[in-house]
Amino acid sequence: MMQTSQFENRTRESLQQLIASVGSLDAHAMQQARQRQAILAKPPGSLGKLEDLSVQLAGITGKVCNTLERKVLLVFCADNGVVTEGVSSCPQSVTAAQTINLARGKTGAAVLAKHFDCTLQVYDVGVAVPIEQPGVRSCKVACGTKNIACEPAMTEAQALQAVFSGAQAVSEAVQSGAQVIGIGEMGIGNTTTSAAVLCALTGKAVKAVAGKGAGLTPQAYENKCAVIERALQKNHTDTNDTLGILAALGGFDIAAMTGACIAAAAQRVPVVIDGFISAVAALCAYRLCPLAREYMIASHDSLEIGYRVAVNELKLQPLLQLDMRLGEGSGCPPAMMLLQAACALINDMASFEEAAIDDSYLEVLRGTDAFTLPETGVKR
Amino acid sequence: MMQTSQFENRTRESLQQLIASVGSLDAHAMQQARQRQAILAKPPGSLGKLEDLSVQLAGITGKVCNTLERKVLLVFCADNGVVTEGVSSCPQSVTAAQTINLARGKTGAAVLAKHFDCTLQVYDVGVAVPIEQPGVRSCKVACGTKNIACEPAMTEAQALQAVFSGAQAVSEAVQSGAQVIGIGEMGIGNTTTSAAVLCALTGKAVKAVAGKGAGLTPQAYENKCAVIERALQKNHTDTNDTLGILAALGGFDIAAMTGACIAAAAQRVPVVIDGFISAVAALCAYRLCPLAREYMIASHDSLEIGYRVAVNELKLQPLLQLDMRLGEGSGCPPAMMLLQAACALINDMASFEEAAIDDSYLEVLRGTDAFTLPETGVKR
Repeated sequence: MMQTSQFENRTRESLQQLIASVGSLDAHAMQQARQRQAILAKPPGSLGKLEDLSVQLAGITGKVCNTLERKVLLVFCADNGVVTEGVSSCPQSVTAAQTINLARGKTGAAVLAKHFDCTLQVYDVGVAVPIEQPGVRSCKVACGTKNIACEPAMTEAQALQAVFSGAQAVSEAVQSGAQVIGIGEMGIGNTTTSAAVLCALTGKAVKAVAGKGAGLTPQAYENKCAVIERALQKNHTDTNDTLGILAALGGFDIAAMTGACIAAAAQRVPVVIDGFISAVAALCAYRLCPLAREYMIASHDSLEIGYRVAVNELKLQPLLQLDMRLGEGSGCPPAMMLLQAACALINDMASFEEAAIDDSYLEVLRGTDAFTLPETGVKR
Repeated sequence: MMQTSQFENRTRESLQQLIASVGSLDAHAMQQARQRQAILAKPPGSLGKLEDLSVQLAGITGKVCNTLERKVLLVFCADNGVVTEGVSSCPQSVTAAQTINLARGKTGAAVLAKHFDCTLQVYDVGVAVPIEQPGVRSCKVACGTKNIACEPAMTEAQALQAVFSGAQAVSEAVQSGAQVIGIGEMGIGNTTTSAAVLCALTGKAVKAVAGKGAGLTPQAYENKCAVIERALQKNHTDTNDTLGILAALGGFDIAAMTGACIAAAAQRVPVVIDGFISAVAALCAYRLCPLAREYMIASHDSLEIGYRVAVNELKLQPLLQLDMRLGEGSGCPPAMMLLQAACALINDMASFEEAAIDDSYLEVLRGTDAFTLPETGVKR
């Protein structure tokens, strides 16, 4: 069933080819969508981001009227060597357990995906232990990364392998009919790796991007920040070398989501990002491929403090304000539902002409007790 | 089909009886919901407002596990005499036209209601002209209010009639099976009346609560503020007399939504508020009946500046950040879908025990290459 990977050649050059295949949004379709929004029977701009989304979607698909019936959430699971530094309140085993529970439909994101009629695909890109659970697709790069406080997380070849695993996952989802992709992750310790990557990408202070993750004590938070500092000192990275930063400080989950974002843009499919970790991956994708940003949609305003830093760099604004910080792609399914609502509005709302709202009615109104709308039961 | 109104006696005393029938949330069910949230396989609180909503719903219904399959959006339509002062960018005829278009399924809120499988009920509580459109239920108090810049909007008897119309609409919806109620409005000029009511309720300055509505020019905005100032001077109101404020400065739509909020609480059904105008109505309901607040859910963060003032008074936090300012109840259907998601999470997520996430797995993990979860395919 599954085709051979189209991304077999996993080199910097093949990544450049993927990036080069990303095109601009369709400016003509966007203009047509804006024109349609302008004639719909509502005050201009009164549907806010639901109008903006319809214009963005038009730019992505080249069509003014879209439906997004086939929704797929891709969750990339991987372990992080840095957990040996005590940066997480959860044991590492939770990564494997929740990878399995995602596939069993029992985690928060799995319940939300089912509720919003979104297909969930779970990928093991680097869980520390072998997993043989139906529904978990294996593209394991290694059994977890190295400890970034001591050495690079992975080799460049591994980073490329993870990036292309994410790209391949998108490619397969789109081939199976996906019209919108969501990205999420599961990996104990990945708010630490994400914060380290974000520091390296932006030069921000550790405490401006590192949060308390799943629930650290104040002391454990201080330790987490110190570990990130050490990781940054140990691994000298170049702000302009995003792939080098991913390899030195990232995780297989972040790298896979980076590849997924670029591939979604290359396939002209909107990609919905979840919380902090996926936002950092989206920022990596943007740095590697600035046009990829145009295909991204921020779902919810994560409570993790680094999230805002990442989305501000991306110039994205989330749709939902739910104070969530679960991860797993949990914010994507409700945001996809809002995207579908944006489609319904531009597709189905009446135009001013159809709604027969016109100043002339005011004149009518002034002169009489009642007035008539075309084909309605209003008394004159 | 429709039963005789249970609210035939429309006096201050009968309103007091309705208010007295509102009970507290079920503290025991809320405690049980909190306990269930605590054992679900996720970091404590990581589902944010979706956890809070499940606890609130438990308090409302008395049950930990709920489903909200029957959703109803009630839209109250009415005209406002103050439009003769030039406070709106739209002609008054738009109220009647959009009342009809709501029932025809062609407005923004109608499209969203359909998209989110929410039944839409349209009520004419005071449109300026007779409307005979299938789907528009008539409970017209008068053909629009008086001009608040010159005289009281309505008599106290009319205010009570409008309040009880809203209460009756909720009563009928619940009798037809509604498990959650949304409230919205259509009425040109109603951001002006809402701002006037909000000033009278809170003592805030006009410019702190009056916005540009559907799209006023700066000069027209200055005029709108001056009109509100005049209305406040002309109609001396008592901060503690909410019904008097509604009668002097409100609209039939605001009064009906006020009654709807109190009746929803009396019926122990959650009520979702939309934007600025419904938030002011919700605040009126809260002032009349403090317990009613416990049954309210704020849907989206409206761009209309007075919205924040009203929800801060109500101590509510919206779920959606969509920059919308359409009205018509348009924010309610997507928020109802989030409420349903909150139900799905507490109903269907695995507990820590079911998810088998336990420190003992860490020990297993340390000693072997793989580990086993109960009834899964993980290799040991």
